[in-house]
Amino acid sequence: MPERIQPRTLKGFRDYLPSAMIPREWLIDTARRVYRSYGFSPIDTPALEYLEILTGKGSDETDKQLYRFADHGGRDVGLRFDLTVPLARFAAQHIQELGTPFKRYHIANVWRGENTQRGRYREFMQCDFDTIGTESNSADIEMALVVHDLFNAIGIERFTIHVNNRRVLNGLLEKLGLVEQSTSVLRALDKLAKAGAEVVAKELSTTAGASEDQVRDILKLAALEGDNNQILAQLESLLSGSETGERGLAELTEMSNALSAVGVDSKRFCIDVGIARGLDYYTGTVLETFLDDLPAIGSVCSGGRYDNLAEVYTKQHLPGVGASLGLDRLLSALEELGTLEGNSTPAPVFLPFFDADRRNDYLRLADQVRRAGIGVEFFPEPKKLGKQLQYADRRGFRVALVMGVDEFASGQCQVKDLASGGSKTVSTASDAALVVAEIQQILSQ
Amino acid sequence: MPERIQPRTLKGFRDYLPSAMIPREWLIDTARRVYRSYGFSPIDTPALEYLEILTGKGSDETDKQLYRFADHGGRDVGLRFDLTVPLARFAAQHIQELGTPFKRYHIANVWRGENTQRGRYREFMQCDFDTIGTESNSADIEMALVVHDLFNAIGIERFTIHVNNRRVLNGLLEKLGLVEQSTSVLRALDKLAKAGAEVVAKELSTTAGASEDQVRDILKLAALEGDNNQILAQLESLLSGSETGERGLAELTEMSNALSAVGVDSKRFCIDVGIARGLDYYTGTVLETFLDDLPAIGSVCSGGRYDNLAEVYTKQHLPGVGASLGLDRLLSALEELGTLEGNSTPAPVFLPFFDADRRNDYLRLADQVRRAGIGVEFFPEPKKLGKQLQYADRRGFRVALVMGVDEFASGQCQVKDLASGGSKTVSTASDAALVVAEIQQILSQ
Repeated sequence: MPERIQPRTLKGFRDYLPSAMIPREWLIDTARRVYRSYGFSPIDTPALEYLEILTGKGSDETDKQLYRFADHGGRDVGLRFDLTVPLARFAAQHIQELGTPFKRYHIANVWRGENTQRGRYREFMQCDFDTIGTESNSADIEMALVVHDLFNAIGIERFTIHVNNRRVLNGLLEKLGLVEQSTSVLRALDKLAKAGAEVVAKELSTTAGASEDQVRDILKLAALEGDNNQILAQLESLLSGSETGERGLAELTEMSNALSAVGVDSKRFCIDVGIARGLDYYTGTVLETFLDDLPAIGSVCSGGRYDNLAEVYTKQHLPGVGASLGLDRLLSALEELGTLEGNSTPAPVFLPFFDADRRNDYLRLADQVRRAGIGVEFFPEPKKLGKQLQYADRRGFRVALVMGVDEFASGQCQVKDLASGGSKTVSTASDAALVVAEIQQILSQ
Repeated sequence: MPERIQPRTLKGFRDYLPSAMIPREWLIDTARRVYRSYGFSPIDTPALEYLEILTGKGSDETDKQLYRFADHGGRDVGLRFDLTVPLARFAAQHIQELGTPFKRYHIANVWRGENTQRGRYREFMQCDFDTIGTESNSADIEMALVVHDLFNAIGIERFTIHVNNRRVLNGLLEKLGLVEQSTSVLRALDKLAKAGAEVVAKELSTTAGASEDQVRDILKLAALEGDNNQILAQLESLLSGSETGERGLAELTEMSNALSAVGVDSKRFCIDVGIARGLDYYTGTVLETFLDDLPAIGSVCSGGRYDNLAEVYTKQHLPGVGASLGLDRLLSALEELGTLEGNSTPAPVFLPFFDADRRNDYLRLADQVRRAGIGVEFFPEPKKLGKQLQYADRRGFRVALVMGVDEFASGQCQVKDLASGGSKTVSTASDAALVVAEIQQILSQ
């Protein structure tokens, strides 16, 4: 017996116990079901990639956070830090075989050696979907519809999808002759909500060299208010004459009309010229999703359109559009909103083991209930009732099936509703059909 | 534009394209559904662990294959090489909170720097379920029932679960006074199938120092034949007088009776004293599962009972029993057996985009079909029909909804069965109820 080793996880990493994992699996399943319903296919890529693949497109920040090492063959390798770089590499490698449009989802862990003091974890799951190889605005509209269906499927009623188009600001800058300064302008505008118009105006004039008139037009754009149709009307006059701007406006208008046509509640969707998405590579539609009851947690699902996914790896032009669900943030939010069910058991029915001589009868009953598609957990030991019920309590079952000496003698079973405390005694004959019916009755409440 | 980087995966790693990933997700889902139906809960643990955790219990071989490195904080870390060591660490850390019996499943990737010449991958998925904290044979029986239900759920009809109990051989060795030599005996017996009885007899006498009589009894045990009841009867005489042996026999008998009582076909289950499972830590039940039509690929689901899962990390005694589904091996087998459906699309219905002015009408139709729970992929561009059908062909859709100028004019839609080539024109009125009904009709065939 060697000396004992202290059981612990690394800083920034965590175990998922069943109580955390069950809602997590449910959320992942829900996302997959919605992605699939639009024809997105699953893919997976290796956790480890050649280091040069990972550092090819990332920023300095992600490069610094990369888990990297030399493998057994002396190759420089790293753990993926997102699912976008692997998608770019994957698309460059396989797009000839797959054809376009290529619609994929990818739900997998990524790793970043981040500063854990900011409450960040070093291993977390990303949940992305993208359409590659088409410039059609249909794919952008579909992205918004997927997000809409996703939040409905999760059971969140009060959410708002904010949509903007990078071409709107670019069009204005084109009109103003400030295209070269667009990065400085974006950077300044990002501070609008926090620092206010005055600070932004000053920064626009110093770092982007904008004139007073130019500053006024930029701030006017960023401050547009009203319903979607009002904003679109105001954009029309601000952008008229700029080809880029008019294209952005047309795309936003199409998106707005399409969502209305499909019946998306106008409260769930707004055109918001204020959102920019920090990432440089977005070129058209950008999208963020906020929970109306928890706006402070920020966007829980974000994405947009990009021009050229895989230029680092291939000469083939691969435009795309897609979004990423913020799984962990959303799970915390659901917990805070009380939307998650408290269950920590994957099977709703508990079958205590009372009569030590009747194990095979218990097993047969459990089997009959499972055949009706209902999960049953059979306690493995004929322990005292108190012990078994204590176990059941902690697990949060919905139904218990009580079978003791009396029940076996009379060919019956007590079906207990653990929420109401009610109980009904039914016959176990005919493959336990009455037991199953009674359980179904309780579960449907 | 930096120099282009060659897109490629590391040796021993692979991308999963949709055609590989769709059956993979289906198999994982099926395993999860079966595990859950017995009350097993999901957990997850970090991919990275402290190196001392991983090297605490592994063998020299796994130590050598470990992906290890120093992280940003200079800690020695490694990628998990299985899910058993993380389970042991997890149980030692959380069992007080979780209580026993603790039933968990864990489906996740592991990494081993193996020699790829043997056709092995360096990243692969494990799919384990275990019951921790009970010595009851109920948990062993349940393991066999889970495996049985799992293969039924996968749609494999011809499989056989082979069960043995380590106590059977240990009991015989106890009777023969060869307990100290059990490792040598196991090692010799492992060669029986390949090398034959003569070679094994010689090895037993040289390495384990067994007498001629002892060799004869050991080989007699290993060569037992007949149906389950015949084997149990023969074991009774071979083991009588050994407490260990009699316990092993009783456990095997209980398992055999329980499986019969639940209605498991006797063809699906056999007592096989020849299986040993190489791993030292099994102490009671051992189980392997073979496909009757592909016996040569070896066991596709294996497991057993162990005495003390987490002794390296805690003084708490944690016996357990569990098994692991060989996901990749089983997927290859299903492909070979032709059991997998050829579909490479996650949504069964294809909606081509013909009339460029009607995008919103297409989107509305797709939405109506999705609300009936049927996935629809809408082509993003109003390309030529041939291009769109070529795309659809490659994806393997079951149904196409054809809506052109004529159909829009008459408020109708052609529902095409892509397998039979048949087609029916139905009204799109009333939320496309007739379209949905026609699709359901085709999908149910």
